[in-house]
Amino acid sequence: MEPILGKGAVASYIPALASANPKSFALVLTTLDGTVYKSGDADTPFSAQSISKLFMLTLALEALGSRLWKRVGREPSGNAFNSISQLEYECGIPRNPFINAGALAVTDAVISSAGDHGALDDMLTLVRKASGSSRVRIDPEVAQSEREWGHRNISLGHFMKSFEVIDNDVDQVLNTYFCQCALEMTAIELSRAGLYLANGGSDPISGAKITQPGRATRINALMMTCGHYDMSGDFAFRVGLPGKSGVGGGILCIIPGIGSLCAWSPPLNEAGNSLAGTRALELFARRTGMNVFRN
Amino acid sequence: MEPILGKGAVASYIPALASANPKSFALVLTTLDGTVYKSGDADTPFSAQSISKLFMLTLALEALGSRLWKRVGREPSGNAFNSISQLEYECGIPRNPFINAGALAVTDAVISSAGDHGALDDMLTLVRKASGSSRVRIDPEVAQSEREWGHRNISLGHFMKSFEVIDNDVDQVLNTYFCQCALEMTAIELSRAGLYLANGGSDPISGAKITQPGRATRINALMMTCGHYDMSGDFAFRVGLPGKSGVGGGILCIIPGIGSLCAWSPPLNEAGNSLAGTRALELFARRTGMNVFRN
Amino acid sequence: MEPILGKGAVASYIPALASANPKSFALVLTTLDGTVYKSGDADTPFSAQSISKLFMLTLALEALGSRLWKRVGREPSGNAFNSISQLEYECGIPRNPFINAGALAVTDAVISSAGDHGALDDMLTLVRKASGSSRVRIDPEVAQSEREWGHRNISLGHFMKSFEVIDNDVDQVLNTYFCQCALEMTAIELSRAGLYLANGGSDPISGAKITQPGRATRINALMMTCGHYDMSGDFAFRVGLPGKSGVGGGILCIIPGIGSLCAWSPPLNEAGNSLAGTRALELFARRTGMNVFRN
Amino acid sequence: MEPILGKGAVASYIPALASANPKSFALVLTTLDGTVYKSGDADTPFSAQSISKLFMLTLALEALGSRLWKRVGREPSGNAFNSISQLEYECGIPRNPFINAGALAVTDAVISSAGDHGALDDMLTLVRKASGSSRVRIDPEVAQSEREWGHRNISLGHFMKSFEVIDNDVDQVLNTYFCQCALEMTAIELSRAGLYLANGGSDPISGAKITQPGRATRINALMMTCGHYDMSGDFAFRVGLPGKSGVGGGILCIIPGIGSLCAWSPPLNEAGNSLAGTRALELFARRTGMNVFRN
Repeated sequence: MEPILGKGAVASYIPALASANPKSFALVLTTLDGTVYKSGDADTPFSAQSISKLFMLTLALEALGSRLWKRVGREPSGNAFNSISQLEYECGIPRNPFINAGALAVTDAVISSAGDHGALDDMLTLVRKASGSSRVRIDPEVAQSEREWGHRNISLGHFMKSFEVIDNDVDQVLNTYFCQCALEMTAIELSRAGLYLANGGSDPISGAKITQPGRATRINALMMTCGHYDMSGDFAFRVGLPGKSGVGGGILCIIPGIGSLCAWSPPLNEAGNSLAGTRALELFARRTGMNVFRN
Repeated sequence: MEPILGKGAVASYIPALASANPKSFALVLTTLDGTVYKSGDADTPFSAQSISKLFMLTLALEALGSRLWKRVGREPSGNAFNSISQLEYECGIPRNPFINAGALAVTDAVISSAGDHGALDDMLTLVRKASGSSRVRIDPEVAQSEREWGHRNISLGHFMKSFEVIDNDVDQVLNTYFCQCALEMTAIELSRAGLYLANGGSDPISGAKITQPGRATRINALMMTCGHYDMSGDFAFRVGLPGKSGVGGGILCIIPGIGSLCAWSPPLNEAGNSLAGTRALELFARRTGMNVFRN
Repeated sequence: MEPILGKGAVASYIPALASANPKSFALVLTTLDGTVYKSGDADTPFSAQSISKLFMLTLALEALGSRLWKRVGREPSGNAFNSISQLEYECGIPRNPFINAGALAVTDAVISSAGDHGALDDMLTLVRKASGSSRVRIDPEVAQSEREWGHRNISLGHFMKSFEVIDNDVDQVLNTYFCQCALEMTAIELSRAGLYLANGGSDPISGAKITQPGRATRINALMMTCGHYDMSGDFAFRVGLPGKSGVGGGILCIIPGIGSLCAWSPPLNEAGNSLAGTRALELFARRTGMNVFRN
Repeated sequence: MEPILGKGAVASYIPALASANPKSFALVLTTLDGTVYKSGDADTPFSAQSISKLFMLTLALEALGSRLWKRVGREPSGNAFNSISQLEYECGIPRNPFINAGALAVTDAVISSAGDHGALDDMLTLVRKASGSSRVRIDPEVAQSEREWGHRNISLGHFMKSFEVIDNDVDQVLNTYFCQCALEMTAIELSRAGLYLANGGSDPISGAKITQPGRATRINALMMTCGHYDMSGDFAFRVGLPGKSGVGGGILCIIPGIGSLCAWSPPLNEAGNSLAGTRALELFARRTGMNVFRN
């Protein structure tokens, strides 16, 4: 791993991420029986960023069921995570829940259905339950930085609003989105939090039912085809596991029926996915044979 | 199934396909031990069309290895199978081997490396070996029809040639491509021919090694992310198996470690994939639990 | 004219415009000697909308000279007035000063150079001087409506800010833009206000120098190639005069060396230009021979 | 002029053009009374290339009248001369007659209406009549080179045929197009041949009526908005005269009511228009005041 560690570029679009240590690295596997296999900086909290889209998607599917797919597609976009062109050709309907525009549509849906405590509280409740950790939090400094430097996302939000694809107040949707991106977790917590997706929607340790089995399966499918922006095909090709990356350098992978795997290394490749994290997962999959496309 | 059978529209871009019986249907599973589970018109030959891209890709990977990926990408396109716009923005490099432009690049590569008998013979040899059937043939009438009505593909070929992405004479590449699309097989033959991809590259019955294990895994990954044009995400979401469709109405699915599945029904959905075939595979996957994203 | 009057659709994206009388019509020619030839509702104030872009462009050229062209291009866009896709491909640099994105870049430049009274005051001062009318005003109700329903423009502004193409605070730029669109004038006032462009930059009546001769010539050129969004070619083809339209139904045309012509009729064609106004100008140009492309 | 002469790059897509002398230069003005003002290599034949599109357009308008506009638009494209993306979004209808796709549609229309001698003979007859020179010819070497290296144009032709926008055999249309591009004329001949467009459609010297007055006016309008590919706006801004460029380095400009102007210098700018030719025309227009946008 040494030659690749530190290569790539730490996300610099917001100051709060630019200061991440490029040498940080963690790889954590949690199996369905709760065993944790960890290496590196497994206990260091980092910014989950787009990995939070998984949890918001879980909430939106619980709230709307298949009606969600009228607001957002489930196809790879063939474009960058923050692209707006396709949105113009397709009348404001985002391609999938994992590009930024799609995540805004999902967050809008969760806001519409959230109870008194709001969408963000619902997400934190879900993540704390799934990860078994009450420490999980929204980093206020990152959230503020997202807001200050979020012109591209603000643009996406108002663009969708102009097509009436967003129901709620755009600023409310954007604020919730900026906060969800600031979700802060450790690799151990993220790895643990992914178990329900490897286990048909239920947490295998607490037994808590987080989503229906069919929805867990389908979220995994979406992670495979759309989880790594415009390098989703490459990730499937190299790693062969459903995964979702974040620009904080984290990647959460699901091994259906076996466990959940989190890699973390801040420097990113050109598509915004962790460079060393992707490589670590590729080696893991090759050496363990844990690849859904292998016999 | 009855309500969906016959819905959709049979491919009509060439006369030779437009005459297909919209009520034809087959579903065939062949397991690694050679057992065949069949229903419907399992013995009726039909035009494999784009499913042939799988076999050409196998040959190209054998010939070029990872150098193939300098000529063609491995990302979903987010566009129709015959789109040319993305090719313009991306300097003539097709997005993946399963859109038409990518298949032309793959065929060009196979032509460059083919021996005395030519790329088409190499493909027929591979398909006959993999399917265990010497009956498999190129339908000359379909090939001729493809050529006559192939303006869109001719356009793609010359477009790529203008970027010097095609090495060989464009007309030779196009002729080979039109012939490979005219590959005629039955659902039983196709199901049998997919076994090497479910078995790490080797035919489990004859023991013949057709490709390396890693390549079989990766072809499966490409089928999952790119195998159904601009509905690849939807297919992964519904079916959860690597698959490749053809406008003749066939779909070949791989169940790694278990077997290979072929559905056939000529009427297509808006993206050019068999409507009833997709639905049959969705029901099969749901009822059997054979879905790589399920625990 | 009768059969075409009332056809097309009054702009409805903001309530303040949707209530315009679809039967309103005016055609006013003011020649360089100050003679006014008028017909119809020549004294009725209406929303100048994008015609105000002409005056902001005049101010921006005075302030920046040719440096303006580093911030905005001068090519027809081949897209709708509010399109964002091209902006993405071209890194946030708008195609020309007359599409919405380009107008935002121009307004940003005027704000940067405006004195104590601000960009909007500068524009009002210029327009009052050019039109010889102190009545000209910003309609506060229209400005407020623009702001409330301005999601597409807000999106464009933040998009450009994300490329650092906008220097000032986005909200300030947008507020100024929403106000400038709410410029309210009569056809007589607009016709009079265009004289400086027909007269080498100087008002032929007061003698006031508004811009340099070369800049007047070039603004006319931009009106010809870009003044009617994605029907600029059609307007040049039919009318043959430099013109700028607004979604309030007004069109201002320049006849170099002769005079300035304003047509007004609220219902619009599919590209957002006055339907009857365009037709009136076409008939005027044909019958008078005032067409820069005619011998 | 000296510093700019020789800058830019001679067209190199075909060998027959790549050998042009980058120091060649001519500027010729012919006034309606037949007076010729010439400088430089005014008698040297060069490849007219896309300037020939003017003459084919004249023939197509004579043959089809306004029905031509069902086959091709009259809007600037906002894209390169050989772009195919817009054609895909717009179902095979080219944006205007001066981009390559549009010229193919025009040539197809001329072929459909041409008499016994064919479209190419019709064009040669028109050009010889308008230029008063029987020397004008198709350079067979250039035509052959166009054919050999014409993959991009072949692609455009088949693409349009796939949308059924081309009526005749694609190869026939392409062959005619490759030949028309190989039109060889001197700057004196081209300048003379443009007089009918400056004179309401009639040759002012021979009195021959070549097209109707309204059509001459409209061809001039199209030259202004679409005559220089994706730098048409820039040409209008700098020069202010209707013009049509060719990759052979020629530009033909019309001064309505006064005369016709031909500049020639082979090295091109990034959009494919003569660099020194554009600059010479800009200086000419500025110094003589011959600019349709000036008072």
